[in-house]
Amino acid sequence: MTAPVTLIVGAGDYIGAAIARRFARGGFAVCMGRRNGDNLTPLIDDIRTAGGTAHGYTMDARDEDSVIDLFARVEHEVGPIEVVIFNVGGNVRFPIRETTARVFRKVWEMACFAGFLTGREAARHMVPRGRGSIFFTGASASLRGNSGFAAFAAGKAGLRAMAQSLAKELGPENIHVAHLVIDAGVDTAFVRERMQQAGHDPDTLPPDTLMSPDSVAEAYWLLHHQTRDAWSFEMDLRPFGERW
Amino acid sequence: MTAPVTLIVGAGDYIGAAIARRFARGGFAVCMGRRNGDNLTPLIDDIRTAGGTAHGYTMDARDEDSVIDLFARVEHEVGPIEVVIFNVGGNVRFPIRETTARVFRKVWEMACFAGFLTGREAARHMVPRGRGSIFFTGASASLRGNSGFAAFAAGKAGLRAMAQSLAKELGPENIHVAHLVIDAGVDTAFVRERMQQAGHDPDTLPPDTLMSPDSVAEAYWLLHHQTRDAWSFEMDLRPFGERW
Amino acid sequence: MTAPVTLIVGAGDYIGAAIARRFARGGFAVCMGRRNGDNLTPLIDDIRTAGGTAHGYTMDARDEDSVIDLFARVEHEVGPIEVVIFNVGGNVRFPIRETTARVFRKVWEMACFAGFLTGREAARHMVPRGRGSIFFTGASASLRGNSGFAAFAAGKAGLRAMAQSLAKELGPENIHVAHLVIDAGVDTAFVRERMQQAGHDPDTLPPDTLMSPDSVAEAYWLLHHQTRDAWSFEMDLRPFGERW
Amino acid sequence: MTAPVTLIVGAGDYIGAAIARRFARGGFAVCMGRRNGDNLTPLIDDIRTAGGTAHGYTMDARDEDSVIDLFARVEHEVGPIEVVIFNVGGNVRFPIRETTARVFRKVWEMACFAGFLTGREAARHMVPRGRGSIFFTGASASLRGNSGFAAFAAGKAGLRAMAQSLAKELGPENIHVAHLVIDAGVDTAFVRERMQQAGHDPDTLPPDTLMSPDSVAEAYWLLHHQTRDAWSFEMDLRPFGERW
Repeated sequence: MTAPVTLIVGAGDYIGAAIARRFARGGFAVCMGRRNGDNLTPLIDDIRTAGGTAHGYTMDARDEDSVIDLFARVEHEVGPIEVVIFNVGGNVRFPIRETTARVFRKVWEMACFAGFLTGREAARHMVPRGRGSIFFTGASASLRGNSGFAAFAAGKAGLRAMAQSLAKELGPENIHVAHLVIDAGVDTAFVRERMQQAGHDPDTLPPDTLMSPDSVAEAYWLLHHQTRDAWSFEMDLRPFGERW
Repeated sequence: MTAPVTLIVGAGDYIGAAIARRFARGGFAVCMGRRNGDNLTPLIDDIRTAGGTAHGYTMDARDEDSVIDLFARVEHEVGPIEVVIFNVGGNVRFPIRETTARVFRKVWEMACFAGFLTGREAARHMVPRGRGSIFFTGASASLRGNSGFAAFAAGKAGLRAMAQSLAKELGPENIHVAHLVIDAGVDTAFVRERMQQAGHDPDTLPPDTLMSPDSVAEAYWLLHHQTRDAWSFEMDLRPFGERW
Repeated sequence: MTAPVTLIVGAGDYIGAAIARRFARGGFAVCMGRRNGDNLTPLIDDIRTAGGTAHGYTMDARDEDSVIDLFARVEHEVGPIEVVIFNVGGNVRFPIRETTARVFRKVWEMACFAGFLTGREAARHMVPRGRGSIFFTGASASLRGNSGFAAFAAGKAGLRAMAQSLAKELGPENIHVAHLVIDAGVDTAFVRERMQQAGHDPDTLPPDTLMSPDSVAEAYWLLHHQTRDAWSFEMDLRPFGERW
Repeated sequence: MTAPVTLIVGAGDYIGAAIARRFARGGFAVCMGRRNGDNLTPLIDDIRTAGGTAHGYTMDARDEDSVIDLFARVEHEVGPIEVVIFNVGGNVRFPIRETTARVFRKVWEMACFAGFLTGREAARHMVPRGRGSIFFTGASASLRGNSGFAAFAAGKAGLRAMAQSLAKELGPENIHVAHLVIDAGVDTAFVRERMQQAGHDPDTLPPDTLMSPDSVAEAYWLLHHQTRDAWSFEMDLRPFGERW
């Protein structure tokens, strides 16, 4: 008997890696796509050393053919995909007058268009089988547009609306679509750098002030294991001490 | 070593009973309050037969002294309360012109005021200890007011706003406050009766069309076990086949 | 021909007075209810001096009989009520553990229960005539519960949900129900006092930093004059310089 | 003294035409951009016959250079732009598996990207002058993603988030940004056709069941005339008889 398959699109960051480890630890064959698949080698080695199964793919989540090809290869080489997690970011901040068309478009392609391509290909493979989970990573900007975040908020709000549309269409097909709102900083090099730039020393933070990527991964794990009589479309995550 | 304590206010229905069984199975001493505590006897017997610990209390969740007294007794007789779950309903439907002041007030007392009393007493006991979980059961009406549901929606939306206020105040005190939006029918005698009145035979429903109370209980169990770097305030639950 | 009638419940504050002046100036006979109707005398004198028609009533908006009686008297003494505006406040701030049951209940009775009584009596008089407007004053707390505002947010969110339920039920009856979200400080003695307590001198504020009550009143005037093919249920109001 | 200038991007449909007539009637020089500017000739003739001022421009709202050029030409040829209204649609319905990447991208370019280009150019011209209004036309899909509407909802939700971000950034610059949620059918040839396809005869509809484009136009007119101490970011519009 073969292991069920999880495909993570946008596996390049801390959260993607944590999701990969969680599902590998849970017995899934984990497939990961990112711009430069070679960079996945250390993570794949780690997972394999721990007894898990992992495969890396070079792909461009913003390119239709690349996404179609990724799904086809995983289905052919590894097996029927049971869980798809879309985890591509795109957080930028610019005053509106300095937001170039190129930036606005690129952020949307990463945050929203790539999510659509991923969700659609997942649906195409899962609907005939009548089973599967498709999960999307959201952010505070998914729910509100703040000053300076026109591009990011447009992309994230678009992703959320697309995911909600999918959830309503695919639920009756026995496919669980969910959207996770990460409403605070996750403990990544990127967030620590931004804190330092803002004059804060991340090393002096009280424990659990930033979210661990493992905690985000755990939420996806639990969502996939909900019984189908009680599926969640959306849940938010933030640290206990967060002001919101 | 004593078992941690869960207190369920509004333990009279299917969901309350399922939550009690879930937390008892997980090693909690389960305390339950309802209007007529004697009616809890069969449930308590079941839990005890299964090796669990359960206690029943007669109380009126809409009465301040009764709620204060319930918390004091549980803390004194059983132990420090770790988890509080507020699960009092109040679903009624009336055209606005036929909604009596008595009904509007009573529904609010059940759905919102009792939730406030429960949340406040929980805070009073938990804040000095710097730990605990306080969870509230919501419904579709928590998010929108539909025609004929002025009383129920006012109560449920009030409960949700109160819970959100608590979450923001008590999170930094290491107390996890969450609100569960149950956005469809749960499989209870009440729902089956209403379906029959509407001309539908609930016995012919496809499996998993109604939510099992156990699935709702499981969501509370998982919420309580989130690590504090990534707490959810809100998640929704509905069956896979639901149109929304 | 007699003037159409506007009834303002909660006419005691700046906003209520501004609404009264606006509708009187627009040709309405303005009826106002507040706890001590005698305090309305200067406002009534002003309106009459300006050529308008105004009547004051002593009433308790939280008391069912008082609200029923107010509507009956206005209908009998002045004429069929065309517009009803509910403008009772109740903004208080307390940490949850210091929020008494008395405060929580009283704030709800003012913010929500009185709104229900007003809306229901309005519906009872307007539905048989197949016309009328019922408007409710909301606040930021109508949309979110912030730390320290459990009572106020529960009342305001309840009012909004009740109003939305009414809008859906009464729209097809040709009755326009709307809810105005006032998402910032209105220029009143109360707000200026609170600013001073917080160490700010309200007299040094740039112009238009606080909302004028007249601007709120104008919004109600415009809502009432929308054509029925395009009614708004909700609009928000805040000053240009507000951070949100 | 020259007339103030209104620029309507997406002036090709009923709503765009109604907005043009409304602002022309109110004394604005109305400039309109659409894919084929020649098609604006009858509307321009009408407005001029009625004593108004109107100018048509051929432009592609999805093309950055075209939008930059439109603003430059209007500013140079007609005068400083006071009001900008973005009114480009893009309503399509496809099951997710049949939604092509081309459709998803095109709908976004129309509904969201063109709105960004319009809003940004408006900001670039208005911020140095410290005045102006920028309004966006939204739909039900701006607030929720329904089954079959992944592309449209993603575009519209993205537009709304972008507009909210602009409102927060540009409000303090004395620029009024607002978003109108049109939550029902507007009386257009497109809507009447779709009703007929669905087996309904639009000619038998009770009066005011569909929204008149004039009513939508009036809402924009009123938004532009709000005093800056009380600006609305969002209002919804639907007919009195609508079920929602």
